[in-house]
Amino acid sequence: MLRERLAAKIRDIPDFPKPGVLFKDITPLVKDPATLRLAVHHLLHPFLGWEISAVAGMEARGFIFGSLVAWELGVGFVPLRKPGKLPYDVQSISYDLEYGTTSLEIHLDAVQPGDRVLLIDDLLATGGTAKASCELIESLGAEVVACAFVVELGQLHGRDKLGSRLVHSLLVV
Amino acid sequence: MLRERLAAKIRDIPDFPKPGVLFKDITPLVKDPATLRLAVHHLLHPFLGWEISAVAGMEARGFIFGSLVAWELGVGFVPLRKPGKLPYDVQSISYDLEYGTTSLEIHLDAVQPGDRVLLIDDLLATGGTAKASCELIESLGAEVVACAFVVELGQLHGRDKLGSRLVHSLLVV
Repeated sequence: MLRERLAAKIRDIPDFPKPGVLFKDITPLVKDPATLRLAVHHLLHPFLGWEISAVAGMEARGFIFGSLVAWELGVGFVPLRKPGKLPYDVQSISYDLEYGTTSLEIHLDAVQPGDRVLLIDDLLATGGTAKASCELIESLGAEVVACAFVVELGQLHGRDKLGSRLVHSLLVV
Repeated sequence: MLRERLAAKIRDIPDFPKPGVLFKDITPLVKDPATLRLAVHHLLHPFLGWEISAVAGMEARGFIFGSLVAWELGVGFVPLRKPGKLPYDVQSISYDLEYGTTSLEIHLDAVQPGDRVLLIDDLLATGGTAKASCELIESLGAEVVACAFVVELGQLHGRDKLGSRLVHSLLVV
């Protein structure tokens, strides 16, 4: 039921952002309050009762699901951003894309040693961004207690990149 | 009290993103769950009981406050994005920045005639992005019933650009 309800609100867009890629468009899900509620509550459900210090999410769609999960868990939200977007002192990490490299940044004071962080994004694809995000948070001494995604592209084996970290996905396609 | 509590969690960053600009960093506010709750509830409070179809927010910080206001109002969230980011058919609007132009996009099926949309962003500065966002939503036949911001830079007179539209700001600096 969960799987069907979510899938009905996720739109496949062929050849976006480039030929051969089947993009998973979550905007219909985000626009439908009942399905959004279902997704957010299932994202956070395994972690109810856990000691969580903050939720981190990646720019930009991760800001939507991440801030909602943080809100419902009653903790703060930590944005992980593309280079040059965070105004205060940052820690950066570079990582490989299919072609070339990119990087991701976190404010130096966003998390601290001892913090237990839940990482949220809409999509787990190759796992490159998720792995870089975990390493960025861990480089500041915090722990990533789990990574949760609305959609996981199973054939890309992104969870293998996340090592022993706990991975929770609502819909594996 | 509201003003002081919000101001205590908004960090001034001089000369970001360029010399002469005093940037308002809302990441400490977003990381503090009590202050985030205060901000979101005050953002939506004037609109409780209004007929609102959806909340729209601008990439990327507007995704945080916009999705939380949408969640609490029980309506869907509509992302307004930078060019090339939305995968489905879009409507675009170009607008002037201090130097050059940029544009913003919305999915064609994100709103429809008769919809009453609340626009949310973290900051009202010159009003260029907010005005373009309103016009983008209105170009699809929907109505922008109000625009709400966490911080308004009063000296930049951004609200003048929004014409007769209702503007609600939590903190005018």
